[in-house]
Amino acid sequence: MDNLLLIIVGAAVIIAVAYAVFNYLCVRKMEEGTERMGEIAGAVRIGANAFIRYEYKLVSIIGSVIAVLVFIVISWQAAIAFVIGAVMSAAAGFLGMKIATYANVRVTNKARETGDLGKTLKVAFRGGSVMGLCVAGFALLGVIIVYCIFGLAAGQIKDIAEGTVGKNFITTLPASFTMTLSGYALGCSIIAMFNRVGGGIYTKAADMGADLVGKTEAHIPEDDPRNPATIADNVGDNVGDVAGLGSDLLESYVGAILSAIILACELFMHNAFFDTVFLNRMLLFPVVFAGCGLIACVIGISYILLKPRLSENVHMELNIATWISAGVTVAAGVVLSYFMFRDIDSAVFKAENVGFKVGAFSPWLASVCGIGAGIIIGIISEYYTSYDYKPTKKIAGASKEGPALTVTQGLATGMISCMLPVVVLAVAIFGSYSIAGMYGIACAAFGMLSFVAATVSVDTYGPISDNAGGIAEMSGLDPSVREITDKLDSVGNTTAAIGKGFAIGSAAFAALSLMTSYLYAFTDQTVTELILNIVQPLTLCGALCGAAMPFLFSGMLIEAVAKAARKMVEEVRRQFREIDGLMEGETMPDYKTCIEISSQGALKEMRVPCIMSILFPIVTGFIFGPMFVAGVLIGATVTAIMLAIFCGNSGGAWDNAKKYIEAGGVEGEGKGSSAHDASVVGDTVGDPLKDTVGPSLDILIKIMSTVSLVAVVVFSKYNLFELVGLI
Amino acid sequence: MDNLLLIIVGAAVIIAVAYAVFNYLCVRKMEEGTERMGEIAGAVRIGANAFIRYEYKLVSIIGSVIAVLVFIVISWQAAIAFVIGAVMSAAAGFLGMKIATYANVRVTNKARETGDLGKTLKVAFRGGSVMGLCVAGFALLGVIIVYCIFGLAAGQIKDIAEGTVGKNFITTLPASFTMTLSGYALGCSIIAMFNRVGGGIYTKAADMGADLVGKTEAHIPEDDPRNPATIADNVGDNVGDVAGLGSDLLESYVGAILSAIILACELFMHNAFFDTVFLNRMLLFPVVFAGCGLIACVIGISYILLKPRLSENVHMELNIATWISAGVTVAAGVVLSYFMFRDIDSAVFKAENVGFKVGAFSPWLASVCGIGAGIIIGIISEYYTSYDYKPTKKIAGASKEGPALTVTQGLATGMISCMLPVVVLAVAIFGSYSIAGMYGIACAAFGMLSFVAATVSVDTYGPISDNAGGIAEMSGLDPSVREITDKLDSVGNTTAAIGKGFAIGSAAFAALSLMTSYLYAFTDQTVTELILNIVQPLTLCGALCGAAMPFLFSGMLIEAVAKAARKMVEEVRRQFREIDGLMEGETMPDYKTCIEISSQGALKEMRVPCIMSILFPIVTGFIFGPMFVAGVLIGATVTAIMLAIFCGNSGGAWDNAKKYIEAGGVEGEGKGSSAHDASVVGDTVGDPLKDTVGPSLDILIKIMSTVSLVAVVVFSKYNLFELVGLI
Repeated sequence: MDNLLLIIVGAAVIIAVAYAVFNYLCVRKMEEGTERMGEIAGAVRIGANAFIRYEYKLVSIIGSVIAVLVFIVISWQAAIAFVIGAVMSAAAGFLGMKIATYANVRVTNKARETGDLGKTLKVAFRGGSVMGLCVAGFALLGVIIVYCIFGLAAGQIKDIAEGTVGKNFITTLPASFTMTLSGYALGCSIIAMFNRVGGGIYTKAADMGADLVGKTEAHIPEDDPRNPATIADNVGDNVGDVAGLGSDLLESYVGAILSAIILACELFMHNAFFDTVFLNRMLLFPVVFAGCGLIACVIGISYILLKPRLSENVHMELNIATWISAGVTVAAGVVLSYFMFRDIDSAVFKAENVGFKVGAFSPWLASVCGIGAGIIIGIISEYYTSYDYKPTKKIAGASKEGPALTVTQGLATGMISCMLPVVVLAVAIFGSYSIAGMYGIACAAFGMLSFVAATVSVDTYGPISDNAGGIAEMSGLDPSVREITDKLDSVGNTTAAIGKGFAIGSAAFAALSLMTSYLYAFTDQTVTELILNIVQPLTLCGALCGAAMPFLFSGMLIEAVAKAARKMVEEVRRQFREIDGLMEGETMPDYKTCIEISSQGALKEMRVPCIMSILFPIVTGFIFGPMFVAGVLIGATVTAIMLAIFCGNSGGAWDNAKKYIEAGGVEGEGKGSSAHDASVVGDTVGDPLKDTVGPSLDILIKIMSTVSLVAVVVFSKYNLFELVGLI
Repeated sequence: MDNLLLIIVGAAVIIAVAYAVFNYLCVRKMEEGTERMGEIAGAVRIGANAFIRYEYKLVSIIGSVIAVLVFIVISWQAAIAFVIGAVMSAAAGFLGMKIATYANVRVTNKARETGDLGKTLKVAFRGGSVMGLCVAGFALLGVIIVYCIFGLAAGQIKDIAEGTVGKNFITTLPASFTMTLSGYALGCSIIAMFNRVGGGIYTKAADMGADLVGKTEAHIPEDDPRNPATIADNVGDNVGDVAGLGSDLLESYVGAILSAIILACELFMHNAFFDTVFLNRMLLFPVVFAGCGLIACVIGISYILLKPRLSENVHMELNIATWISAGVTVAAGVVLSYFMFRDIDSAVFKAENVGFKVGAFSPWLASVCGIGAGIIIGIISEYYTSYDYKPTKKIAGASKEGPALTVTQGLATGMISCMLPVVVLAVAIFGSYSIAGMYGIACAAFGMLSFVAATVSVDTYGPISDNAGGIAEMSGLDPSVREITDKLDSVGNTTAAIGKGFAIGSAAFAALSLMTSYLYAFTDQTVTELILNIVQPLTLCGALCGAAMPFLFSGMLIEAVAKAARKMVEEVRRQFREIDGLMEGETMPDYKTCIEISSQGALKEMRVPCIMSILFPIVTGFIFGPMFVAGVLIGATVTAIMLAIFCGNSGGAWDNAKKYIEAGGVEGEGKGSSAHDASVVGDTVGDPLKDTVGPSLDILIKIMSTVSLVAVVVFSKYNLFELVGLI
């Protein structure tokens, strides 16, 4: 049976990638529209490509160093897996971004030609689906390659496929299998880190720069062609919200699947009574479940692309596509879970820390816990950030009293909004653990991400529509075109909030199961119950320092954005001052310098925080030993979750409070009023929080866990504190 | 010998209280100055008294309920100790505030009459010293009362005094001694919580309300008599920065001393080999050390009050007073430590978790770790918040680009500033633990606070000088008077930053040792090594929810301030609009309504966050059991430390960035420029963070630990999850 399962996964990957290629070609074939539209889109495309090329050059240097280190310290298999991970993640980000820069102008053109919302949505979504399918497809492809070829010697994969994993597996496992998988995860993480951080700095520096001078000082609308930073702003959407998001979610997806597999191996090694057939199924389940999810997403995506006439309610249509994907995944999961685990010895169902408490359905139920938590967290985020509800309305109301109270009220909302999602997470953790032990927590993580192809498609369609609007504005098209793209864009903002719920939730779960694997990795194999004693002083110190890490990291990112944005502001002001006839629309601004500023700023500022987050657990590990790092990981995970929720929700709420005022929600106020000005300040403050810091924090905790997991085999043996006898 | 030690402490208390009374009478005897000055000071005094009376009425209701509960569930001794704690804390806050409202106008008058900085400083510091001496004196008085009369039956105190505590001590201890001490700490905590939160909301609502309309809209200077909110603002300084601070530090001081005593008892109960003489010394050491500190502070305070001619360098003079207090304390401590522990059996010096690793000097060295950490954290705070250094200058520079970047840069600074203090804390924790085990961590906590009388005196002198300046402005005195008070005030701001370092540091240490006591309280007495396994799912869920608590609490406080401030803004705007001749200075504004708004706002808004923080650990304890609450405590402690540092430093930095611009630090900008307006926005955003949220967080973690410690004897036996068999 297990061979068949692997074939299903392979087929799913092939279908998904083929579908992505088909959609890519479809989009490319469409018309670009007027010459002016083509010019602008070309400028955005060139800017985005140039940045990614610079960035990948930087990453390839750092990546090479890490690959060599992994090769020397761990194994050649892990080094190659690392490279494969990096390539998969980089490729998904690059391709998704490329198609986004083709799709944007074609969306504008479709709106211009047809004036039809549904048809325009289809183009935008087709563009987005390329990214969605690539993310899941490439991730899974990499898993299969690593799983089949490098992870296990040829004999072992046969054993696994036949369910006859022998006892010699135990001895060869640590070096060859879990480490190779960790290497793969690390490769994905590194790219995700740089793409997210670099893209995040780029996009917000441009955005803030454009807004600070354009909206606040010169009082010209967003995307006005007279604003020198507009093209950079549009480039930013592509490198940050598309390439960054793609690599990020690919990494989460891979992290969730692999942490389940690694955890299963560790549990196996620490529980001798463990059934090898059971292990075999536990190793396969995440991969096959992901394969089912991928097929479900192909169906969900096809709903939108194939439906002859989409309704005017864009939000509903996108929701249906997501619900189909999720529903089919859950339905396939229950069948899969039953067939894979029904013949397992009932003894293991009862084992503490490991066992499945509710029989063959346990892993499926645990996954559903994750999916449920993701959805509820998304809904909570929507409550706190949508202007249909009280919190955002309060911020809009506070804008009447000036920018200070707008900011204050937004900070309060963000802080208050931390509690509910965390309670949901806690319930899901306790639930999934009660159902299937530690493995259950890992199941919840990959459950949340099992239909990632659909969520990424929806998430990517947002910035494509946003860009399409910008192109319409800059090309001086009829306002009716802009109206259509604005409608698409605003729906994109809401769906993005829900997507963030999944991103944070899955990051938390993945980090926890990676941390558990980390603990197992240096715990004696005879010990079955994991203990991380937080009142042990060294661990406590680690937890405190770890807890400060997300704050330090966030502060550095905010400062980086602010620094680049200030340069941008100066440049935009200079151009307004020095270029004659610019404000009258007679001459063109110098877009290129602004693109350069964002690009250079991002490349320069991303290095320190990225490298710091990679080095921190390693360096402290070699000085203070593995228990300190364990503290670091738990401390960082806890505060990163809080900060990510805080940043995401306060940023989102400020953004929508501004939109609420623009929509006339606050009596007597509107665009151009002093309350609106105050709300623009709030929005600008929130920009780096929600689009740079929040998403980067998700990666921070995963990269720290993955790095520690890879390095712990070394620093658990050699560390300064043990050497000098301090512990 | 031990009888002698207790006599020393008693004498120290008597000297300190007598000195406070003397200073109180001295200040009262001074002249108030002109009639107008008397009127204004009278209005401030009446406002402050009225608020405290309202507040204490509310607190007494809640306190009575708690006292009855403690009586029913724990013991009558604990209930009485609780009441004593509440009375001591309330009395210290009240008296300190009362003298502050007398001293303020006398400071103005001294400056007016003499024009001498040194003489004016003396009046202000004499006022402040009343609070400082009362805080330490009352706290210690209460400890002695509880310690001698209620904590132990008459026979036991004799045993302790004679160093012959018998084995029967072990069985009677838990109910009668540690619980009584916890009750006392709880009493102090409750008052501190309400005083800090209520005062914090009051003062910032008034301050923000006054600034938002006065400075930003009407462009009139601070403390201008035409601004209807000025009196309320001055009242706020007294109820928030004086009464709030006093009760807060009294609570920290008591918490630190008692947690050491309780921990010593717990260690004794869990380590049968423990020497009773050793226990006896461990119980006495914190109290005697505190007594030495109190005498040291009397000497330090006298330096300023008795020195015939103070130098013009106010900052230096205050530093000398603090250094004398600290130096004498440390010097007395080393003698004390040696004489108390030199004859202890060397076996206990080696015991794991308990023993003194460096002989008789161990508890002293651990205290010095705490003192050192407090000083370094203070210096770090100064670096991040003083405009002599880069971080604050950067914020001032960002103000040129408008309010959004000012806020953004300030957030970044606050976040980045979390790492260094936490590293210092971690080093101090590891150091004090390595020196004297868990008891060492408690020693570090009371070490930090041992010269609290001096730091509170210095901290209280700040708001007194601030008020004095306000009175000078409102009475239309010569600008030279204002110049003197401004100088005093600005020094007060710097010393406050250092004081905050001690407050956060000691709160962290006290919370940790209370948490350890909590863990011991429900751990089987045969277990010697404490374990709090954070990867156990229930504990992990607790840690997550606990970590969200400080965010929720902070958000609620910020929102409370914003809400009250908005009402104030509306009222001030109404008065400017409706009262004819107000802006021209011909008619007087209606100060009383503004005082009412602040007062009502604070009383209304303080209830929910305060009651929530008390109920949270109890309610979750009765549902999920003690391990969940243990998770809550560690999670809350970790994030509260981060948030407190973040709020304190970003708020302080914004404040000083504004002052830097006013002082002409940014080229081409100054009072009234657009950069200054932007910096005022930053300052206003920072106000509730640094003066309401930050200090309240320190209490939050201590009150949660204390409440849990009191309630755990009950909910460790009866809780829902255990009843239904979920754990």
